[in-house]
Amino acid sequence: MRDITPIRILPGTGIEVLDQTLLPREERRRRLTTVAQVGEAIRMLRVRGAPLLGVTGACGMAIAGEERGAGAEALARAADELKATRPTAVDLGAMIDEALAAVEGAGTGEEARRKALWAFAERALARQRERDGALVRHGRDLPGLEGAVLTHCNTGGLATGAAGTALAVIAEAWRAGRLERCYATETRPLLQGARLTMWELEALGIPGTLLPDTAAASLIASGQVGAVITGADRIAANGDGANKVGTYGLAAVAARHGVPFYLAAPTSTFDAATPSGEAIPIEFRADGEVGGFGGERWSPDGGDAYNPAFDVTPAELIAGIVTEHGVLRPPYGPAIAALTG
Amino acid sequence: MRDITPIRILPGTGIEVLDQTLLPREERRRRLTTVAQVGEAIRMLRVRGAPLLGVTGACGMAIAGEERGAGAEALARAADELKATRPTAVDLGAMIDEALAAVEGAGTGEEARRKALWAFAERALARQRERDGALVRHGRDLPGLEGAVLTHCNTGGLATGAAGTALAVIAEAWRAGRLERCYATETRPLLQGARLTMWELEALGIPGTLLPDTAAASLIASGQVGAVITGADRIAANGDGANKVGTYGLAAVAARHGVPFYLAAPTSTFDAATPSGEAIPIEFRADGEVGGFGGERWSPDGGDAYNPAFDVTPAELIAGIVTEHGVLRPPYGPAIAALTG
Repeated sequence: MRDITPIRILPGTGIEVLDQTLLPREERRRRLTTVAQVGEAIRMLRVRGAPLLGVTGACGMAIAGEERGAGAEALARAADELKATRPTAVDLGAMIDEALAAVEGAGTGEEARRKALWAFAERALARQRERDGALVRHGRDLPGLEGAVLTHCNTGGLATGAAGTALAVIAEAWRAGRLERCYATETRPLLQGARLTMWELEALGIPGTLLPDTAAASLIASGQVGAVITGADRIAANGDGANKVGTYGLAAVAARHGVPFYLAAPTSTFDAATPSGEAIPIEFRADGEVGGFGGERWSPDGGDAYNPAFDVTPAELIAGIVTEHGVLRPPYGPAIAALTG
Repeated sequence: MRDITPIRILPGTGIEVLDQTLLPREERRRRLTTVAQVGEAIRMLRVRGAPLLGVTGACGMAIAGEERGAGAEALARAADELKATRPTAVDLGAMIDEALAAVEGAGTGEEARRKALWAFAERALARQRERDGALVRHGRDLPGLEGAVLTHCNTGGLATGAAGTALAVIAEAWRAGRLERCYATETRPLLQGARLTMWELEALGIPGTLLPDTAAASLIASGQVGAVITGADRIAANGDGANKVGTYGLAAVAARHGVPFYLAAPTSTFDAATPSGEAIPIEFRADGEVGGFGGERWSPDGGDAYNPAFDVTPAELIAGIVTEHGVLRPPYGPAIAALTG
């Protein structure tokens, strides 16, 4: 089986990351040994996916300790630098803060502090493996994960550094013989489905079928998929979930046809302080991502674009939310309060 | 104002067509004076859009008369050749048959038959202008065509050789001051929205905003568009309408938000012999159209694709169907029977 690991920790030295911007054309790993290199890799989306960004942030702090010394001031500066690379990535900031807390517990000795940072980075990755594993065990028996399933964007190992979330649930249901095929949307504009999910499915040996985002509604209407399952970027207290733009349309059509729509997301995705989807801030990205890709431009130059990175699926369209602690079912308010309280 | 005419008739000689495959990068016109050249232009999608294919078919028969003589046998062979270039294009075949009928009425003189073919070609284009004009007059006052509107694929002058259908209605509502902006989906996989609609909007001076197909659902949910209007490729007797893949998803989301969804289509689009959408045959296109565009490939080689050209929007999601004879309203069964009977 091909190696799809997106990150490897080299304690005392740095990390080796798979450059996701080159997939699926090229599987190139880059060794990162400075804070600047880690920052560049995050900013350029060479590493992406909320949980993987968290792990990478923890690793970046360990690299800072080696490169710049593990004093409190140097680490605080490195933390600010790394957080600024993707300011909206909640996991990135949270794991960097956890790394800072871990090193404070290690006293003042330089050597002990460096070791504590590497130990935390390895713990962060191990914790991710445990979380993904637990989430998959809860999700693999979901009703509707039979025959074929539809997913959106990329939620596999490339996104978490471990098994993944929604795509890992799909992989496990396939291993169990429940699923025969996974349909993947292209996921315009950044094409994570076409580039990354199709590559992971191929690497895992799972039969995959790619579709234009426009074809998802008729695929669901045709009765060929038993369920739709995606990840989530942020879930409000009432169960409304923000995820990669395009998710809401899939959920709306799935509901019309009685096809269950699920989110798979670790508990860290829940934001109990946000009452509902309306309060979730939506990041808008550069116009230039629309109307072209890579070296190809297909729309007239200089036109306006509407390019939100996420959309919000209302809780009433969500049949279940798979977490590492179990599958939440409606009504989500009490379930989420119990989980996050 | 820029010249966006996709076809010009040069009686006695041939036609000049705008090569739509090069848009928006290059506005190149090609002169076609042989049946083989016309066939190539249709097959390669240099001319596309159901009504424009009809006009082009009529012109192709006039070109056949010049090139090969206007005898019945030579014309029948040319008709078969031209029809075979896009076997599912209903208008193409229908207009070629009308051209054959027109030439039969002209007797047996070679000169008279050639002239009859050119006269029919010019009549076909003039008829298209009248139809588009009448359709636009009926559509421009539709409820919801206020502020901003969303459309899908390309339904402008490029698609009909005259004003267009849905996009022409939008243009007229903009001229009347009812609309300020037109949102256009990219329309994967062939990107007619990004390539052609954005180019037409720019040529007409109408403010246009391009969006990935994935962003349409959240745009509709945001309340920023007063209506969604598209063309149609075939409308069944009960009002179910087949159109470019992706249309059904837009209609489903529009209905959830109380945003009216309209089809704009000439009467020739109605197929009274097809009882409902389930009976409309859907063309599936080559896998290679998915996972890349132009010189760019972004999915792993050799993967499967799900690539229907059309989807079906059920009548219950359609607020009105604009035709050259007026706007049909639900229940569509009786309205369509009256129109086509």
